[in-house]
Amino acid sequence: MSKTIAVIGLGLIGGSMALALKGFEDFEIVGVDVSEPTLRFAAEHGVGDRVTAEAGEVIPQADVTILCLHPRGITRFLEEYKNQFKPGSLVTDVCGIKTAIMEAAAVLPPEVDFIGCHPMAGTEFSGIEHAFGEMFQKSHLILTPRETSTQEHIALMERLADYIGCKDVVRTTPEEHDAILAYTSQMMHIIAVSVCDDPMLFTCKGFEGSSFRGCTRVAALDVGLWTQLFSMNSPALLTALDRLEENLHAYREAIASGDTRLLSEKLAFSAGRKRKMNLEGPDLLSLD
Amino acid sequence: MSKTIAVIGLGLIGGSMALALKGFEDFEIVGVDVSEPTLRFAAEHGVGDRVTAEAGEVIPQADVTILCLHPRGITRFLEEYKNQFKPGSLVTDVCGIKTAIMEAAAVLPPEVDFIGCHPMAGTEFSGIEHAFGEMFQKSHLILTPRETSTQEHIALMERLADYIGCKDVVRTTPEEHDAILAYTSQMMHIIAVSVCDDPMLFTCKGFEGSSFRGCTRVAALDVGLWTQLFSMNSPALLTALDRLEENLHAYREAIASGDTRLLSEKLAFSAGRKRKMNLEGPDLLSLD
Repeated sequence: MSKTIAVIGLGLIGGSMALALKGFEDFEIVGVDVSEPTLRFAAEHGVGDRVTAEAGEVIPQADVTILCLHPRGITRFLEEYKNQFKPGSLVTDVCGIKTAIMEAAAVLPPEVDFIGCHPMAGTEFSGIEHAFGEMFQKSHLILTPRETSTQEHIALMERLADYIGCKDVVRTTPEEHDAILAYTSQMMHIIAVSVCDDPMLFTCKGFEGSSFRGCTRVAALDVGLWTQLFSMNSPALLTALDRLEENLHAYREAIASGDTRLLSEKLAFSAGRKRKMNLEGPDLLSLD
Repeated sequence: MSKTIAVIGLGLIGGSMALALKGFEDFEIVGVDVSEPTLRFAAEHGVGDRVTAEAGEVIPQADVTILCLHPRGITRFLEEYKNQFKPGSLVTDVCGIKTAIMEAAAVLPPEVDFIGCHPMAGTEFSGIEHAFGEMFQKSHLILTPRETSTQEHIALMERLADYIGCKDVVRTTPEEHDAILAYTSQMMHIIAVSVCDDPMLFTCKGFEGSSFRGCTRVAALDVGLWTQLFSMNSPALLTALDRLEENLHAYREAIASGDTRLLSEKLAFSAGRKRKMNLEGPDLLSLD
């Protein structure tokens, strides 16, 4: 008899997850959403093996429940359904912050495991109509297991990551995740929206290249989601933004000084650091 | 009898230009460089129809000379060869600043036309070994003609842009070009290097997604080139950076205030501006 994975919330990430997971081992993939148009779209496009509006009917049967809601949606869902998850089952999520989510998951009874999960993938769009099963290919998948999480559940998440095409699985603590993501993700979004606040934005069309498109792509963000992510991780984000302001201002001063040797040395330092990184991954500009 | 286009400097852009121009109308494409290894690579890889180290032998015959050197290399070349260009010919360039280049081109005799040119394309790499003929596809090509530039020469540049695959040709003044490019290009590079100066850079590997890769890709820049571009356009760049610092700081303060409604309104404003832009173009992250 087949087992069940419930995907709660069929937005951009949940929809992509339900698409990517189809055929994974002997799991039936059940998509859950409260929106009738979303469910209809999901059913018509084969997002998951079947879909339903009734979370309360699915999660008592589900061996794995993946919460693909906005952060506050996840905390509310955990509170509301805490006593309905199947004993021995695994609950996980896809959220871009982890400390607040792990704390919220403390409401679960001890026989339900929770492993925080953050697939480092996404686009600047929202909604199931932009979901695609290849979204996670070549991305990192970050796990923040509890101390009590079972090896069996961690191994299951690793196989799941492999199946949906992730490049690797990185394990860390919720606190470290949130400190680093404030830098690698949230700060990138603050930069993008700040650049788009420039009065020159609309006169610059025709004068932009790939560096401008690459930096500003994510400015067209999901306002509700990112308001929550920024607010719920504000101490780490503010620290990262303070460092950015300092580093930007140092470049501003080097340029203003007219000292080209100093500027050249600063650039050689930064460019050298970047070359050491050698980051590879999916390129999403073509979705612009 | 065929006409001649001389491409002076076979680096990343010049090499790509010489590759892209092959077969353009009845022009022979002659690549010129001072570096013996570069010339050998160019000859072995068919970069242009032929190559030579002797600029002085080519430009008196060239109907079009495209200067693909660093900014100060262009100003030096114009000064050194000002009396050797073919009368009636067109000299142009590919440089990311235009005011200083147009001023330097004032040394040319009146019978030699000069049209400033900036193809909005490139990668974070340098040198002929990274050149590719498709570089300019779907890019903007910006022209800053002189008031005295002939319609014939402008039309020739437009056909050339079309042949190498540019999306459109935008005409402007050198001053407007430099003010806008300080924002769309130079500022993006300052952001990228500033982000890479963050102490968290090397610990964040495994925690980065496409927004981080998109923003920091260009940090691995050509130090000599960008030192010149930033320095030779510093007034416009400093103005742009001051606006960025202000816009970033406003976001920092909105986050620090804890007022999620204010933050949400700010994000909706910026995201709405970005959506209005709808920028399309080649995606260069896959070259990372």
